[in-house]
Amino acid sequence: MTEMKMVFRWFGHDDPVPLKYINQIPGMYGIVSALYDIPVGDVWPLDKITKLKQTIEEAGLHLEIIESVPVHEDIKLGHPTRDQYISNYQDTIRNLAKAGIKVICYNFMPVFDWTRTQLDKQLPDGSSTLVFYNEQLEKLSQDKNNLALPGWDTSYQKQELQALLEAYQDKTDEDLWASLSYFLKAIIPVAEECDIKMAIHPDDPPWSLFDLPRIIKNEQSLDRLISIVDSDSNGLTLCSGSLGCDANNDVIKLVKKFGQKNKIHFAHMRNVKILDNRDFEESAHYSATGSLDMSGILKAYADSNFSGYMRPDHGRMIWGEQGRAGYGLYDRALGASYLLGIWEAFTKE
Amino acid sequence: MTEMKMVFRWFGHDDPVPLKYINQIPGMYGIVSALYDIPVGDVWPLDKITKLKQTIEEAGLHLEIIESVPVHEDIKLGHPTRDQYISNYQDTIRNLAKAGIKVICYNFMPVFDWTRTQLDKQLPDGSSTLVFYNEQLEKLSQDKNNLALPGWDTSYQKQELQALLEAYQDKTDEDLWASLSYFLKAIIPVAEECDIKMAIHPDDPPWSLFDLPRIIKNEQSLDRLISIVDSDSNGLTLCSGSLGCDANNDVIKLVKKFGQKNKIHFAHMRNVKILDNRDFEESAHYSATGSLDMSGILKAYADSNFSGYMRPDHGRMIWGEQGRAGYGLYDRALGASYLLGIWEAFTKE
Repeated sequence: MTEMKMVFRWFGHDDPVPLKYINQIPGMYGIVSALYDIPVGDVWPLDKITKLKQTIEEAGLHLEIIESVPVHEDIKLGHPTRDQYISNYQDTIRNLAKAGIKVICYNFMPVFDWTRTQLDKQLPDGSSTLVFYNEQLEKLSQDKNNLALPGWDTSYQKQELQALLEAYQDKTDEDLWASLSYFLKAIIPVAEECDIKMAIHPDDPPWSLFDLPRIIKNEQSLDRLISIVDSDSNGLTLCSGSLGCDANNDVIKLVKKFGQKNKIHFAHMRNVKILDNRDFEESAHYSATGSLDMSGILKAYADSNFSGYMRPDHGRMIWGEQGRAGYGLYDRALGASYLLGIWEAFTKE
Repeated sequence: MTEMKMVFRWFGHDDPVPLKYINQIPGMYGIVSALYDIPVGDVWPLDKITKLKQTIEEAGLHLEIIESVPVHEDIKLGHPTRDQYISNYQDTIRNLAKAGIKVICYNFMPVFDWTRTQLDKQLPDGSSTLVFYNEQLEKLSQDKNNLALPGWDTSYQKQELQALLEAYQDKTDEDLWASLSYFLKAIIPVAEECDIKMAIHPDDPPWSLFDLPRIIKNEQSLDRLISIVDSDSNGLTLCSGSLGCDANNDVIKLVKKFGQKNKIHFAHMRNVKILDNRDFEESAHYSATGSLDMSGILKAYADSNFSGYMRPDHGRMIWGEQGRAGYGLYDRALGASYLLGIWEAFTKE
């Protein structure tokens, strides 16, 4: 059987989901986590990384993959201060390698990470999920001076956010590509030395929002990304849900192509229900509940002898669970079990 | 895709697992349940069946299969009173058919149904499960006048149990076969008329306990069973865990053989970890946690175009759940998702 390793995202001690419970999910190999108390741009101290790893190992799980080491906005903006932040990022890579980390997930989205317009949309069966409705987005965007996105409300002070949006005002996609190129040329050699694989996460959703540049959104951009530095350490987090909510992206084709090139180090498995007008809803992992062919995607991974890390991505909130939207225990655990079933079927000898 | 229908066992309004939660499990088709307030041997009234069905349908689920309609001990013992009980059983079949039921699960185990020696064995990961250890069984059996089996303590009054055990004292396996044959010849024609499939559950574990006869335990006995009345309505509940805890039973072979004959109407999917000395522990459904090749078993079902009902059988207790041993929500839901994943992989076009 191909040694894909199933992991579960955990947000540290503040996460309402206990590590002990994650370890009771059959077939769960480890955790993907991060240090959440380090200001963006600072070096991650080795002792804190080691302590996190120890906590996870004491619960019977592995920590070999980080999601995410965030990239400071000055790097994305190409500000002169970026060199210090890049130097810090290199040191973080070195410290993570010392602690035995193998893969680092990151993204290059300006200002906002993933974006949804509602985090608790009630479904007919009483569960709730994250959705993206353009009608809601228009309402949210009406007053750019008071942009309040679900899930990001507390990430920025109002004035800080305004300053950031202004800084990006004249930035084009090509500017962002130039910044990404500069960043990769500096960090990939360090990652190579440390035997760390960098795995960029695609933009979510994979199109521009609030006039901000977004560049990692389709086959063409993934091609361009890997061509910047030709290295095993310059790879992808292939997120089925992020790329898949654009019906123009053929996720199975992308997995086949980049899987054969050994460029996929981390697989995010999520299903999504594509509606009209570029609206979408996050569905359960089960293929029949959404628009993606989940077993088709896993078949493509199995055929490319995928031996990286995989995680069930966002789940709905079911069974009355309260917690972090998209990151409850229950529906993600169902997703992991479903994915492991498909995987077993496709990889058994 | 072959139209296997995944169902979840539910014990009625006393069950701590709400129907609403079962309906939130992706891919869940329906419920398998029973009337729990009818004395064994009495006719199940149509209005009560209809009410149960309505309750389940209001929760978004189907009720097309019953587990179990119990067989009165007088039928198994071959007592003269059996004819009245058989007549009642026929009426129950007719009433279930009127309510749209398609399959009835039953068993022919004397006195005790499934038997375990401990229902809450703690596993290293903090979950708990049902086990069968012969050392524990010997202790339980030392005083036959005070037989107290986990899970059955309250099923019988002490004197009632004594009388039953005495009644079976001289009964052989052949006596029990004669009683089963008499029963089947009376009820299968009625089931045929009503388009109901009878599905016998194998003995669990599939060997004799407390010197009681047990006859449905291996390939040979399943062959004999279906030969008694040659009818589509005379079929099997193939329980992987019950048959599979005897290492001499090749569950994949059994599914292939009886699946090709269209004799399997109900699939119970459970994994089991076989230890030395005929001891065993119920494991998670995931193949790697037990002794059975779960995807191999499902492949055999898929290859025989199985279109019956399937349920995840017993689960462990995980995530701090309290409830009915073996029948918690969480681990069974993980099992269902895992099985649906394997099924999708093997049956997609």
